[in-house]
Amino acid sequence: MHDLTDKVQAVVKESGVAAGIVNVSVVGSTASISTIEFEPGLKRDLPELLDRLMPPSRGYGHEQTWHDGNGHSHLQATLMGPSITLPVREGKLAVGTWQQIFLIENDIKPRQREVIVTVCGE
Amino acid sequence: MHDLTDKVQAVVKESGVAAGIVNVSVVGSTASISTIEFEPGLKRDLPELLDRLMPPSRGYGHEQTWHDGNGHSHLQATLMGPSITLPVREGKLAVGTWQQIFLIENDIKPRQREVIVTVCGE
Amino acid sequence: MHDLTDKVQAVVKESGVAAGIVNVSVVGSTASISTIEFEPGLKRDLPELLDRLMPPSRGYGHEQTWHDGNGHSHLQATLMGPSITLPVREGKLAVGTWQQIFLIENDIKPRQREVIVTVCGE
Repeated sequence: MHDLTDKVQAVVKESGVAAGIVNVSVVGSTASISTIEFEPGLKRDLPELLDRLMPPSRGYGHEQTWHDGNGHSHLQATLMGPSITLPVREGKLAVGTWQQIFLIENDIKPRQREVIVTVCGE
Repeated sequence: MHDLTDKVQAVVKESGVAAGIVNVSVVGSTASISTIEFEPGLKRDLPELLDRLMPPSRGYGHEQTWHDGNGHSHLQATLMGPSITLPVREGKLAVGTWQQIFLIENDIKPRQREVIVTVCGE
Repeated sequence: MHDLTDKVQAVVKESGVAAGIVNVSVVGSTASISTIEFEPGLKRDLPELLDRLMPPSRGYGHEQTWHDGNGHSHLQATLMGPSITLPVREGKLAVGTWQQIFLIENDIKPRQREVIVTVCGE
């Protein structure tokens, strides 16, 4: 899991947009984005939760076609979603003090990820 | 659970935007927003579902740091997501007749919540 | 499940927007939208996953009011969410090669669905 908040905040500031929205999206189908209180406990809890609800298994239909062992990664990423859209107010990303934007790598091996940040507003 | 639809509709109307999108976001990491048919049965079913998939427990990593009993609240809020973005058409929020925007309080005690509504378009 | 990617791509192109975002939303409370690698294995896995986490049952509060057998459909749609917002770059929807936008029908009988696509940007 990676905390993207500061980088998103920097893009918002640079955009000059005072009020509007910011969309943060990861390209690909085995990673996802949401918000969380980014602290060590939850960084352990969230991957454990996702693996409990959507466990690694060779029984998925995806495995029978691709045999790459990441069927559960796709399901986790689809349920979590690849993007989030949040408000911008007074030139800043408007989230709570204990609320950070994060990317979670759902795939089974390290991947380099492209994240696209878009600011809309005036 | 709180039905936000009328308040969002009012903000959309006041914005004067005829066609575009509206983003509804709750500030904080233990509440979430989505759409649902807002009726008494589902108002009981959804919290029960979330507590079944992500039950209250002292076993979460979050508890071992914070001991505040709301580790499951964070996980529920992250999986559901803190925001939704929906279309605006003919100056109105474009959702189904039996589809309402709601906020669900995932935390274990009543909280005052700030919801930010942003309309983009022309 | 229906792959909406080409239709969304066509709307983006027609809009003339070079950089911005595109929102794809389904009207109604028993269908949902996200992204996935749209291949036969996962087209089987995702509905199975949703039915495992939120199984059909006459025990839901929703059933006791409406007796229409689709309480789980509402819960699945609320957890998945009715919309997605993704980036537009160089006049195109910016998603991965193996990442498609899809609609999943969560209801228990075939339904005709209205999907609204909105492009914002310049």
